[in-house]
Amino acid sequence: MSDFNKQAGSLSEKAGISSPEITNVSAINQIKFKRRQQPTATELIAGILEGNRTSLSRAITLIESTNPEHAEKANEIINGCISHANKSLRIGITGVPGVGKSTFIEAFGTHLTQLEKKVAVLAVDPSSSISHGSILGDKTRMEELVKDENAFIRPSASGENLGGVARKTRESIILCEAAGFDTIIIETVGVGQSETAVHSMVDFFLLLKISGAGDELQGIKRGIMEMADAIVINKADGDNIKRANQAKVEFNRALHLFPPKKSNWQPKVTTCSSITKDGISDVWNSILDYFEMTKETGFFQEKRNEQNQFWMMETINEQLKQNFYNQPEIISLLEQNKKAVQNNEISPFAAAQLLLNQYKKSF
Amino acid sequence: MSDFNKQAGSLSEKAGISSPEITNVSAINQIKFKRRQQPTATELIAGILEGNRTSLSRAITLIESTNPEHAEKANEIINGCISHANKSLRIGITGVPGVGKSTFIEAFGTHLTQLEKKVAVLAVDPSSSISHGSILGDKTRMEELVKDENAFIRPSASGENLGGVARKTRESIILCEAAGFDTIIIETVGVGQSETAVHSMVDFFLLLKISGAGDELQGIKRGIMEMADAIVINKADGDNIKRANQAKVEFNRALHLFPPKKSNWQPKVTTCSSITKDGISDVWNSILDYFEMTKETGFFQEKRNEQNQFWMMETINEQLKQNFYNQPEIISLLEQNKKAVQNNEISPFAAAQLLLNQYKKSF
Repeated sequence: MSDFNKQAGSLSEKAGISSPEITNVSAINQIKFKRRQQPTATELIAGILEGNRTSLSRAITLIESTNPEHAEKANEIINGCISHANKSLRIGITGVPGVGKSTFIEAFGTHLTQLEKKVAVLAVDPSSSISHGSILGDKTRMEELVKDENAFIRPSASGENLGGVARKTRESIILCEAAGFDTIIIETVGVGQSETAVHSMVDFFLLLKISGAGDELQGIKRGIMEMADAIVINKADGDNIKRANQAKVEFNRALHLFPPKKSNWQPKVTTCSSITKDGISDVWNSILDYFEMTKETGFFQEKRNEQNQFWMMETINEQLKQNFYNQPEIISLLEQNKKAVQNNEISPFAAAQLLLNQYKKSF
Repeated sequence: MSDFNKQAGSLSEKAGISSPEITNVSAINQIKFKRRQQPTATELIAGILEGNRTSLSRAITLIESTNPEHAEKANEIINGCISHANKSLRIGITGVPGVGKSTFIEAFGTHLTQLEKKVAVLAVDPSSSISHGSILGDKTRMEELVKDENAFIRPSASGENLGGVARKTRESIILCEAAGFDTIIIETVGVGQSETAVHSMVDFFLLLKISGAGDELQGIKRGIMEMADAIVINKADGDNIKRANQAKVEFNRALHLFPPKKSNWQPKVTTCSSITKDGISDVWNSILDYFEMTKETGFFQEKRNEQNQFWMMETINEQLKQNFYNQPEIISLLEQNKKAVQNNEISPFAAAQLLLNQYKKSF
């Protein structure tokens, strides 16, 4: 834009001739003003620490951006917020599509804001870049919560890989905490690997289920049940109450087959209705019991320390791989070697060594 | 040793004085002969391809060595053997301690050699470096098989991490196949992560169980059951037959709850006795059915290709991490940053970036 000021501008065809009327000077000035207006990292940090939602939203947008300049600014903001973060309770909620995650979070979140909690709802949904935000994308599903001034709802970052999407959500948690949100809910779909990623960033992990006609346990990934600190059977209302109670018994029996958790917490199975609100306060009370117990035993802090180390190492390991596999020479050599390995011309180990040697040479 | 020939040798104190009688010339010559005798890689390859067991054992020792010179020689041998490998059936066998893996492999292996198969038994047991070879270490448990000229038994490589131990076993498979062994059995303990490693190097995965007094399914990792192509209830003899049959029914029911396998193979549950040999031939026939089916559908080759790619990538990824984490500067910086992350002085992501920048500078 500096040339624009020095010269007469490309719109003024000759010197001495004034700009034609069609040039909207005020529009140009507005654009210039807006560009100038982009808040600095320092301004965004100040805004976040004051609890300003616009600053928070803008900073999360920077985290989600693929522009390297934005990434740098986002890192500056995170570092400015980190000492003010870490003071919330982080709750992960998973469940396959159809269990009513959005309506549950609406009821649960509203219950919390009524208790004067400040609730941020984030999501990890690697499929959202394909489906254009299946989770939380449709904010109208949380009509009440979205209007609640003590709630902040943000759909999943999009991205090609789960690692990236999860990292962005994990970074956003820091900003939400610095902005004063004391309860962070992370939603994810109960399919694929995203629950493991969410499990590694929350203090408490809740599995949402509904009662089904057939075998309750069929098709549940045992890994998810092992991670759960609570199983909540949703939609326990009307004709469904009896079946929900049956499901509760079955899940309770199944849970007792698992070895005891490292936290020594015995996961509870409860029923609830997001419509009648029955059982919603029980869910929260059970979570409070968990926090009381694990803070007393020290498990709470221990788990957070482990999670932080996990994210540090995970970020390093991911970056090491990306640096390697994105190198143009490696890309073509990898293809050649995959074929050679397939044809038994070279062992997988010798092929790996060959690629690593080539990579070393490139420095 | 070249100086020894030129000079009078340190044992002859003065020129012209003959060696004292105590110097055992024949012993020295024997040592010299033995050193000269260390076979070259080419000699070992030739030996392996002739089916020479001493060559095979020596080459596997080179694979297991931590000496970089040996590693280079081992790679040369593997590359010389790779085009002669890949023609066997690879069977993984897992089961927790006490299910009778050794006696089962003794009975099963002997059944195979009677059918004129050539059977190699290897193991993946990362605990062996601590317990000094719990699996296969006590070869007397396989009295018959160890004397069988059509069988080759080798205990697990030892090492500090599963990745390394597994890689060494995977490389040893290549040599065993080149030496003419057409059936490779890989044994592992059914605890920890070693089953996953074994699963990634075999064509067929067998889970060995025994009937118990209580709930049959309690304590089994669902992940292992999902991997199994067959579940065999061992020790189905004497008073135990009834209970073994009950366990068979229970496992069959549990297996039907799993989603269908990519191979379209429906895993079978059978009973057997390693003492009476009842059911041993059924196990083999079922494995043959599996191979027939998967070779026809192409799944057999597809899986092997995937496994080879997996091992190539796994070797690369492991090496990238090792290069990073073993760098002296990184080691101390990592410790500092772990503490800073724990004290919320820096975010896990910023700490990772700091370490990666330092690593980049070191090239």
